[in-house]
Amino acid sequence: MPILDADRLFPTEARSRALARGLYDSIKALPIVSPHGHTDPRWFAENLPFPDPAQLFVTPDHYVFRMLFSQGVPLENLGVPRADGGAAETDGRKIWRLFAENYYLLRGTPSSLWIDHAFAEVFGLRPRFDPHTADAFYDHISDCLARPEFRPRALFDRFNIEVIATTDGPLDDLCWHRMIRDSGWQGRVVTAYRPDAVVDPEFSGFAENLARLGALTGEDCSTWTGYLAAHVKRRAYFISFGATASDHGHPTARTENLSAPEAAALFDRVKTGRCCAEEADAFRGQMLTEMARMSLSDGLVLQIHPGSLRNHSGAMMARFGRDKGFDIPTRTDYVQALRPLLDAFGTDPRLSVIAFTLDETTLSRELAPLAGAYPALKLGPPWWFHDSPEGMRRFRENTTETAGFYNTVGFNDDTRAFCSIPARHDVARRVDCAYLADLVTSGRLAEDDAYEVAYDLTYRLVKKAYRL
Amino acid sequence: MPILDADRLFPTEARSRALARGLYDSIKALPIVSPHGHTDPRWFAENLPFPDPAQLFVTPDHYVFRMLFSQGVPLENLGVPRADGGAAETDGRKIWRLFAENYYLLRGTPSSLWIDHAFAEVFGLRPRFDPHTADAFYDHISDCLARPEFRPRALFDRFNIEVIATTDGPLDDLCWHRMIRDSGWQGRVVTAYRPDAVVDPEFSGFAENLARLGALTGEDCSTWTGYLAAHVKRRAYFISFGATASDHGHPTARTENLSAPEAAALFDRVKTGRCCAEEADAFRGQMLTEMARMSLSDGLVLQIHPGSLRNHSGAMMARFGRDKGFDIPTRTDYVQALRPLLDAFGTDPRLSVIAFTLDETTLSRELAPLAGAYPALKLGPPWWFHDSPEGMRRFRENTTETAGFYNTVGFNDDTRAFCSIPARHDVARRVDCAYLADLVTSGRLAEDDAYEVAYDLTYRLVKKAYRL
Amino acid sequence: MPILDADRLFPTEARSRALARGLYDSIKALPIVSPHGHTDPRWFAENLPFPDPAQLFVTPDHYVFRMLFSQGVPLENLGVPRADGGAAETDGRKIWRLFAENYYLLRGTPSSLWIDHAFAEVFGLRPRFDPHTADAFYDHISDCLARPEFRPRALFDRFNIEVIATTDGPLDDLCWHRMIRDSGWQGRVVTAYRPDAVVDPEFSGFAENLARLGALTGEDCSTWTGYLAAHVKRRAYFISFGATASDHGHPTARTENLSAPEAAALFDRVKTGRCCAEEADAFRGQMLTEMARMSLSDGLVLQIHPGSLRNHSGAMMARFGRDKGFDIPTRTDYVQALRPLLDAFGTDPRLSVIAFTLDETTLSRELAPLAGAYPALKLGPPWWFHDSPEGMRRFRENTTETAGFYNTVGFNDDTRAFCSIPARHDVARRVDCAYLADLVTSGRLAEDDAYEVAYDLTYRLVKKAYRL
Repeated sequence: MPILDADRLFPTEARSRALARGLYDSIKALPIVSPHGHTDPRWFAENLPFPDPAQLFVTPDHYVFRMLFSQGVPLENLGVPRADGGAAETDGRKIWRLFAENYYLLRGTPSSLWIDHAFAEVFGLRPRFDPHTADAFYDHISDCLARPEFRPRALFDRFNIEVIATTDGPLDDLCWHRMIRDSGWQGRVVTAYRPDAVVDPEFSGFAENLARLGALTGEDCSTWTGYLAAHVKRRAYFISFGATASDHGHPTARTENLSAPEAAALFDRVKTGRCCAEEADAFRGQMLTEMARMSLSDGLVLQIHPGSLRNHSGAMMARFGRDKGFDIPTRTDYVQALRPLLDAFGTDPRLSVIAFTLDETTLSRELAPLAGAYPALKLGPPWWFHDSPEGMRRFRENTTETAGFYNTVGFNDDTRAFCSIPARHDVARRVDCAYLADLVTSGRLAEDDAYEVAYDLTYRLVKKAYRL
Repeated sequence: MPILDADRLFPTEARSRALARGLYDSIKALPIVSPHGHTDPRWFAENLPFPDPAQLFVTPDHYVFRMLFSQGVPLENLGVPRADGGAAETDGRKIWRLFAENYYLLRGTPSSLWIDHAFAEVFGLRPRFDPHTADAFYDHISDCLARPEFRPRALFDRFNIEVIATTDGPLDDLCWHRMIRDSGWQGRVVTAYRPDAVVDPEFSGFAENLARLGALTGEDCSTWTGYLAAHVKRRAYFISFGATASDHGHPTARTENLSAPEAAALFDRVKTGRCCAEEADAFRGQMLTEMARMSLSDGLVLQIHPGSLRNHSGAMMARFGRDKGFDIPTRTDYVQALRPLLDAFGTDPRLSVIAFTLDETTLSRELAPLAGAYPALKLGPPWWFHDSPEGMRRFRENTTETAGFYNTVGFNDDTRAFCSIPARHDVARRVDCAYLADLVTSGRLAEDDAYEVAYDLTYRLVKKAYRL
Repeated sequence: MPILDADRLFPTEARSRALARGLYDSIKALPIVSPHGHTDPRWFAENLPFPDPAQLFVTPDHYVFRMLFSQGVPLENLGVPRADGGAAETDGRKIWRLFAENYYLLRGTPSSLWIDHAFAEVFGLRPRFDPHTADAFYDHISDCLARPEFRPRALFDRFNIEVIATTDGPLDDLCWHRMIRDSGWQGRVVTAYRPDAVVDPEFSGFAENLARLGALTGEDCSTWTGYLAAHVKRRAYFISFGATASDHGHPTARTENLSAPEAAALFDRVKTGRCCAEEADAFRGQMLTEMARMSLSDGLVLQIHPGSLRNHSGAMMARFGRDKGFDIPTRTDYVQALRPLLDAFGTDPRLSVIAFTLDETTLSRELAPLAGAYPALKLGPPWWFHDSPEGMRRFRENTTETAGFYNTVGFNDDTRAFCSIPARHDVARRVDCAYLADLVTSGRLAEDDAYEVAYDLTYRLVKKAYRL
């Protein structure tokens, strides 16, 4: 059996499978539009070779190293840097062999789909990856990475990426984006405005961040009006580097719609970063509504990514720092939480708010009913742990009947694993085509409509929703 | 491809499909028993022609107009009347064309199944409905509606409705039901007792409603005992017009079982309608238990429809009023909430309580375990947003293994869209047969048992549970 | 159609079905490893014949009698003993006939799969069980039970049980286990430490239980250190009878990690059993962390079974006592609840904590992300109402993509219905093979890997996780 089944993720029954294949064939070559992700703009600015295979596939991929860690493999041995100054493995080949020995742990996970796809399609490797082939894979990939056609810009072109968005902090000077722009390269790499560092009073260094925001913008960030003006300026700066969206990663989906004096008073209480948890939460909620208000002027799409309890393990946080696979989803409410923002602006079709969830129970109960009513609200694609065949299938099954297809916004790869981008989009396209095929064979959708919807889900909706 | 696939909603695999078809063929011609819905008794009383196609299919159907609104179509343009006196479109053909232009938004939704079914089966229209055929559809349906065989009573007979229940308020004089009864027409149209207006202290005009209830019944509704006696009388009045059930639409499933003095004291606090939210909620909860107690005497089945946050958008409420697609489901508890009522009466097999949910997570976790234990409790069919192929399938998959088939109560169409009634029952019958076929082909149910269960789910259980 | 379809629970489509059959054929004969259950060690100690068919299949099986009760059959008529001294049916044949008349109520439930399997495979009965065959079944099973090859030890061998764990209270002297050990019989029956009676301040007789624990161990259980020492001794005693695990059935998954002085102070407040609910809950939570700490020394695996509201019906509790089918699952949190324990010991790969859930929404949202990160945490198999084909399928679909297969621990039959043990393991094996087959046919898993995973899920993981 080839490592990649040409009909993977399609329905098993012959008629549905043939139909899914037909739908997929009609859209598989469409360009990738990646409106939300975490690639490093420096890659495209400098266009230097990627380092060794371990640093490409293992060390930065928290899906991979968390699974190995969960089975007792120390993160240090996978080259994950210590935050506390302890030693970590630096020998790429040693890390790679350890990865190969434990690759079986990823059976049945989307990571194995993505990695097998990258091995086969990006690096042309046809054997199975296992301890016996590990060295050969390492050598081959190392050789490839040294060649010009595997540099970031070349891969960008080969991956058929029409546009990709990075995610940058509000204090970032966007120097790499500037360097890309100045380079004359035609690849479209845009930024996105992710202001958590100056919006979340519980963010590390919040007060200092406000001071830097003030310095960057020339606004007085010790006042509410100055602080808001600073956001307006930074958003404009990000827009000048192609941004079409802001993004907000909050513990909850809470929004608030305070009067201006109330909001100013709340800002005064939180601006030092020394406020109670309730005040911090209320302030984050108020800022979502402020961002929606600014959107009506500058057109940035508002993305809300709530519901992750970050850095669940204090021990791991102390040893390795943030983002080491210990962000755990929590039960999330949207009905009450989004109401203040939606009451203020939700019926304005000029606004575009995209809500994501890690709590799949909210899809049929809350998010599809909300998005199927409010013109401003759209449903973000399945996120994080749910960016997977079963997760994507559940997303469609739980949202389509109430919100339809046209209140969704296409796919986000949401990744920093550059080589996995074609694989991730391919999985999404296949799962959507499989779903559409099943609708047709069960008499719920006309076949020609399915072709149109496949195109819309792959290409048209993402460009429309993200204004790309 | 014909607009209606004869095998729609059946499994794709040949053996399961053939079996599902066989099951469906055995029950498809059974009469419709509709124990819970929102048709207007006036239709059957006056038997006047339905107005134009737009008023039949678009303007009153919140599933349809909420979806179009969510994509930026103003409700006024769909003829939805303004509560604030503003203008709304009245030209049926204009509304109809706008509907046709946006009909693609309903792809993949049950609304498109229902509407296509009504076009084909009720009006004999075989082409696809789209902007090119919109005018021809409008003309044809308009012509039909002018003919006697499309009047309400004729359609009632043609739809093979054995009995249908309307839902009426406690202050309703049931004049249309009286007119039906006096007309000599043999169609069985019964009422149901929906006392929210005099049970929910937060209902608009609650205090005035109590006064009217007192006037109607000759009871002193300023006292707890008089108030209860008034309910007993109104229930008897509704029973005289065929009612076999009461229905209760509360924000939560909360029940209470206070002592008589405590309940009387609570009534004294809420009877003005000026009470706190907690008191209102407790009172609604107490009244569910009171209704159960009355059921033991008069036999009305108790339906509980909890968990919708009504009129989520203040702006839409102000502009268009209630029931405009902005009722959003919320997380709902049943385990603690139903306990007081079940502790009081739950083991009494003479009582029939039917619980519905908009929170599908409760099906396998709470409702199936409760209904699989308490003799008085049955599971209502998938409701509202979940009255759909996926919703119905999830309902069976999440309840059957714990509650079995015999603690469920058949299907409710729950609709005011008269022409969709055959379509909705047809969807339910097909989905149930598909589920049963899959049980048989996977060795979980004997084939002859499946035929018996199909009959029970379609016809026997609803008549038994609703005492029709 | 034979009563047991040889391909039951396999996918319907031919290619997947053939593959599932192949996988199943490769593992169906593996020995049963049953690390968690409720068989009575006395059966194996005394090896007396089981009593009549009704006492084997009906009276002790709460899955069966709760379903019949939910449809109005009095429990007394099924021979369920009254706690209040009232009369209950004792004529086995009468009970059996009532069971047969109502057997249709179990259609579509796992109970019917288990019972049909036991009838066919354990007792060789091929006809359908119904009122017409009831007497013949009764006579045949009665005859069998009188024969030596149907005694507990003979069935143990015939069922191919490699090892089975019972569940015993901390005050149990394990006399039956001693008798088994002293008998020279080679069957491996081990105990498990279930200390709820001396860990839960709300357990009936808690203060007296502490006193008995002190007497048994010679420790002063009026002090925190003495109480902990007593646990250490009892755990060692249980280990001497083969225990490899402890088990904890708490209302919530709450854990605490108090300092020693805080814990001692809390113990002083709860040790009388007269504490507030919050103190009781905190103490149970602290004891989970204490048990984890002891595990690091003595190696017992820690099982957590949270989220059941026990004895929901006060009326049934008064009439029939505990465990009569009225334990109802509730919404359960794991993210915050497990954090104190996981913060203390969760990254230690020497520890093995197995978490179960009755709230399936936590599988993809909380438990798979947690188990896919913490080395100490594993996912228990689908439990109780979810020990069913749909429940098992949902378990895999909701956990595999995030936690993989290797953070799961095989199957638990969790039963006191001895004759259902082969059936239950068979259902789990079939459902897992069906899931694996679908992964292969959809290109998500290599076929040879699927064979290896099937073996691991059936045999290797349970032995490893439970240290058997």
